Amino acid sequence: MEKPYCIQIFIIFISIAVFIFGCSTSTTRQAFANTHRNTNIQSSPIIDTPVHNSNHHLTNTPLHPLDPLTVPEINKIRSILAAYEPFSLSFPSINTLSLDEPEKSQVLSWKKGDPLPPRKASITSVLDGQTHLLVVDLDLNVVTGHVVSIGSGYPMLTTEDQTTALEVLYKDLEFNKSIIARGVDFNDLVCGSSSPGWFGPDEEGKRIVKVQCFSGQNTPNYYMRPIEGLTATVDVDKREVVKITDTGRDIPIPKETNTDYLYKTQSQFPYNSETNPMSMEQPKGPSFTVENGHTVKWANWVFHIKPDIRAGMIISQAMIRAENGEYRSVMYKGFASEVFVPYMDPDQAWYFKTYMDVGEYGLGATAMPLLELNDCPRYSYYMDGVFASADGRPFIRPNIICIFERYAGDIGWRHSEIPAMGFDLRESRPKVTLVARMVASVGNYDYIFDWEFQTDGVIRIKVGLSGMLLVKGTPYENIYNISNTEDMTGTLVSENVIGVVHDHYISFYLDMDIDGPNNSFAEVNLVKEETSPGQSPRKSYLKAKRKVAKTENDAKIKLSLYDPSEFHVFNPARRSRLGNPTGYKIVPGGTAASLLDCDDTPQIRAAVTNNQES
Amino acid sequence: MEKPYCIQIFIIFISIAVFIFGCSTSTTRQAFANTHRNTNIQSSPIIDTPVHNSNHHLTNTPLHPLDPLTVPEINKIRSILAAYEPFSLSFPSINTLSLDEPEKSQVLSWKKGDPLPPRKASITSVLDGQTHLLVVDLDLNVVTGHVVSIGSGYPMLTTEDQTTALEVLYKDLEFNKSIIARGVDFNDLVCGSSSPGWFGPDEEGKRIVKVQCFSGQNTPNYYMRPIEGLTATVDVDKREVVKITDTGRDIPIPKETNTDYLYKTQSQFPYNSETNPMSMEQPKGPSFTVENGHTVKWANWVFHIKPDIRAGMIISQAMIRAENGEYRSVMYKGFASEVFVPYMDPDQAWYFKTYMDVGEYGLGATAMPLLELNDCPRYSYYMDGVFASADGRPFIRPNIICIFERYAGDIGWRHSEIPAMGFDLRESRPKVTLVARMVASVGNYDYIFDWEFQTDGVIRIKVGLSGMLLVKGTPYENIYNISNTEDMTGTLVSENVIGVVHDHYISFYLDMDIDGPNNSFAEVNLVKEETSPGQSPRKSYLKAKRKVAKTENDAKIKLSLYDPSEFHVFNPARRSRLGNPTGYKIVPGGTAASLLDCDDTPQIRAAVTNNQES
Repeated sequence: MEKPYCIQIFIIFISIAVFIFGCSTSTTRQAFANTHRNTNIQSSPIIDTPVHNSNHHLTNTPLHPLDPLTVPEINKIRSILAAYEPFSLSFPSINTLSLDEPEKSQVLSWKKGDPLPPRKASITSVLDGQTHLLVVDLDLNVVTGHVVSIGSGYPMLTTEDQTTALEVLYKDLEFNKSIIARGVDFNDLVCGSSSPGWFGPDEEGKRIVKVQCFSGQNTPNYYMRPIEGLTATVDVDKREVVKITDTGRDIPIPKETNTDYLYKTQSQFPYNSETNPMSMEQPKGPSFTVENGHTVKWANWVFHIKPDIRAGMIISQAMIRAENGEYRSVMYKGFASEVFVPYMDPDQAWYFKTYMDVGEYGLGATAMPLLELNDCPRYSYYMDGVFASADGRPFIRPNIICIFERYAGDIGWRHSEIPAMGFDLRESRPKVTLVARMVASVGNYDYIFDWEFQTDGVIRIKVGLSGMLLVKGTPYENIYNISNTEDMTGTLVSENVIGVVHDHYISFYLDMDIDGPNNSFAEVNLVKEETSPGQSPRKSYLKAKRKVAKTENDAKIKLSLYDPSEFHVFNPARRSRLGNPTGYKIVPGGTAASLLDCDDTPQIRAAVTNNQES
Repeated sequence: MEKPYCIQIFIIFISIAVFIFGCSTSTTRQAFANTHRNTNIQSSPIIDTPVHNSNHHLTNTPLHPLDPLTVPEINKIRSILAAYEPFSLSFPSINTLSLDEPEKSQVLSWKKGDPLPPRKASITSVLDGQTHLLVVDLDLNVVTGHVVSIGSGYPMLTTEDQTTALEVLYKDLEFNKSIIARGVDFNDLVCGSSSPGWFGPDEEGKRIVKVQCFSGQNTPNYYMRPIEGLTATVDVDKREVVKITDTGRDIPIPKETNTDYLYKTQSQFPYNSETNPMSMEQPKGPSFTVENGHTVKWANWVFHIKPDIRAGMIISQAMIRAENGEYRSVMYKGFASEVFVPYMDPDQAWYFKTYMDVGEYGLGATAMPLLELNDCPRYSYYMDGVFASADGRPFIRPNIICIFERYAGDIGWRHSEIPAMGFDLRESRPKVTLVARMVASVGNYDYIFDWEFQTDGVIRIKVGLSGMLLVKGTPYENIYNISNTEDMTGTLVSENVIGVVHDHYISFYLDMDIDGPNNSFAEVNLVKEETSPGQSPRKSYLKAKRKVAKTENDAKIKLSLYDPSEFHVFNPARRSRLGNPTGYKIVPGGTAASLLDCDDTPQIRAAVTNNQES
């Protein structure tokens, strides 16, 4: 298949089952879960948080075809939309508003100094329960595309959608009775509006959320104090409560004891570290530069990077310098395309927890400012996100991406010769890499995304999971009370608290353009060969057999330990000195298969996880 | 199974097939292979290389039951052996000589200040073609155990064995003719004695090596200039050449062009880095101490560490401090137990390359001094190896282990709250860990072994592969010359050079003693459950089902992606506050199954790789 080619690959996180032993001192350290409580995310226009050079946003102009929309551009789009006839009576709610990227060919042919290709915005908005997909041309000052969506799916939840759900619920009499019955003071009530999953016709055609609540009494870690079994289904378009389920009145709200995570309240090691201070030292400063706010140059790499409301961080046009000094294309675009997090509990209050964090909440929308020195080392460069809120106004989320050089005491390459025959050699080169990091706090969960670039050409994507567990209340205080622990859907991790079994499937979009856009995909099977009689004292050996995918379907991969393969993306038209095609090997990190039934609605929705690459 | 329990686990390296594309600029950076050329390893008694406090070795006394044998102890053992009647005529060749560790119970009951349990040495030696296994009691000054081995297997090759093989070969007329026929100047000849594998009766009962040679003309990287097809089989006990195979006279010796790896000869990036200097900064110094040369205390950890001629580095009695200040046992002993490296080429000159680097060469025996700042960061503590050479005399290999604190700019734990309901929290804690590192240069290959300790209780074992490829000569200069690339057993990586497909299976011995020696092993299967009709809108979910191994056989694990499991070692008698048993989860890193035929001799010998844990 020699045509432009993209890969969806999983780097799968297997925090599948959480078994917390007494020996593990890290209960609150184990990343775990999702309440997806995203109310009141910063959405005021142009916040005045002290940010390095934040004022430049007010007058910023794009300088590269892929640069994100600027504050002036977003303001202009808002004016265009406000003047657009179909919205003259009522301005729609903006769910996403971002650059409609030019065609790849336009981007590739653009050179520094050229005028930018036409700037366009792609907008998803809701008006009167209908989803409008719009394209605005910023040069022509008009809406050039407008489709009312009648297909499946819903736009990303806005902060306002989520706040609406809570406002509606807080006025509901039945809900108020339930809260009083649980003995929770309204001042301590913390509620979050959670995506409802997709379970066929019952809730279809409605934009709904499931609201669940916690007690924030005496703790910052209300996630550990669920009001179990109370679930309100709220229609955010109709602004009405659809249903309230209240099944867990016999389940106590877990106490706040032992689950406060604040450093200042931790007297115990390891929460309070006993180690001496430590940092990176770069006496001459870092070796990378960021040109025009988005183009990173470091060692032999250059790439474009930008925050994105949905993907969090998009790396584009990654190129590596060849021996003749020219930059060679490696990847046109790469980003986290989806995060699927199904919880494994069929209970009324839990069955729907089958989150798709990227499409439902947005990794950029949930990225909070990084903490200097703790989230990123010294000499980091920080980048702000410029996004649009539901009313179409721009806002700035400061410091959501950091870029830094990493030295971890590791060895890049080394060799020692044995001192014989005159070869008394020891050579070792320390490893220094470049990291671009963003962290999405999707409710209780913090996903740390690192893209790491090595001078030898390797690009490494790492995802760290941190934050708090999503837990289920239970009447049990210890496992001796439990008659059959086999019935539990998770592990008792504190008194009255169960950590429910779940998975995280993280999939990445990688549009590799190795030495140009025409790349192929090969599966290289490692196959056992038998020797013929008398050929060798060996009976067997393994051989690499290369199969080039002719169709996209050929490139769907189910990983197998006992029938292993490598996966190569290569450019058949570009050859090395020896005649080998240029290419990259795609190496999955943690790997896992989804065990859900293929016909189960969450798995149908997350069918991308049926294969490990596609 | 509630009895003392050890685990063999693989952390398997899958550098299975090496496909070097033109785009990869790292040909000589890719770790690859093994010629196992170990001649003339440092074996002179007490070298005078400048080492921090190296003189203390001369008078060193052991202070912990597990401390390795000291210089005075090795000298004493030599005297005891020299006076031992069976060796009165001829001193045997010492293959390994190391501490015969006391029983675990003796070690566990020992306290600082107590006299040490009796010091004993375990010795493997060869005399007149027979293998003698000896135990020497250093308190009683006698040999207390002496068995002549009649079982299968051979002792580790000594430097002297390997040197002997070369001496014998260099005198062989046929060999000399072959070298002259290849046009190699004897001054450029570099030969290595390689272990022969095991292929049934033909070579059985003889201690043989396979010698192969390279041209070192105009390059330090003679590994890239093989004299292909020339293989000498030498009996090291009988000191005679058994067979010479010379099949590759039509294969040119690859040129030295493009394969010199020396930094000083590299003008091209990435070999010559363009990045600014960078290091760790610890203004108050590191936070760990090393007591009595072997007991490391850092943060909440304490453990004993020592160099070992075979395993390279042994970690013992790793304990973590509990909240009440007491140390709790985690692991009694952990080390790399074997490295199996089968090459996948049935050719006469290649079939036998099925190395077992630990048992054949020794990771400690091939560990060369670490390069300060390049192999290990600033503030590292270095530890010397004290070993015995074939004549029983002690020698010191300086700086073969380094211990350092690592800060990689990573996040230990973090969480951002969404600024709602008064919870405007951002907390992030940088990750600092402790690393113990040793590097074994088993011929062309450098294995970097890191044991990393985290304050949250995690122990992480990492293995990095570096050094040079083991390559096969070929008449082909580029792939256009090759009629059928399917026939190749590897990839053309330079002119006349094939990188042969191979695997690295690295297995670890982990004797976990979690809160005491009586631990159990559980396989936790993740199993799909179907909901009953009407129970839930969900059709399926997965459940963790725990199966405690009753026999060692139960604990043999074949990993499966589609029938996944977790692996827990736990102490059923020690419970947390909630009643959960204390334990650790064993998480395999890279995983792979051996595809060799189970009846093939290399696989029979490396049967430990049939399962991923056992």
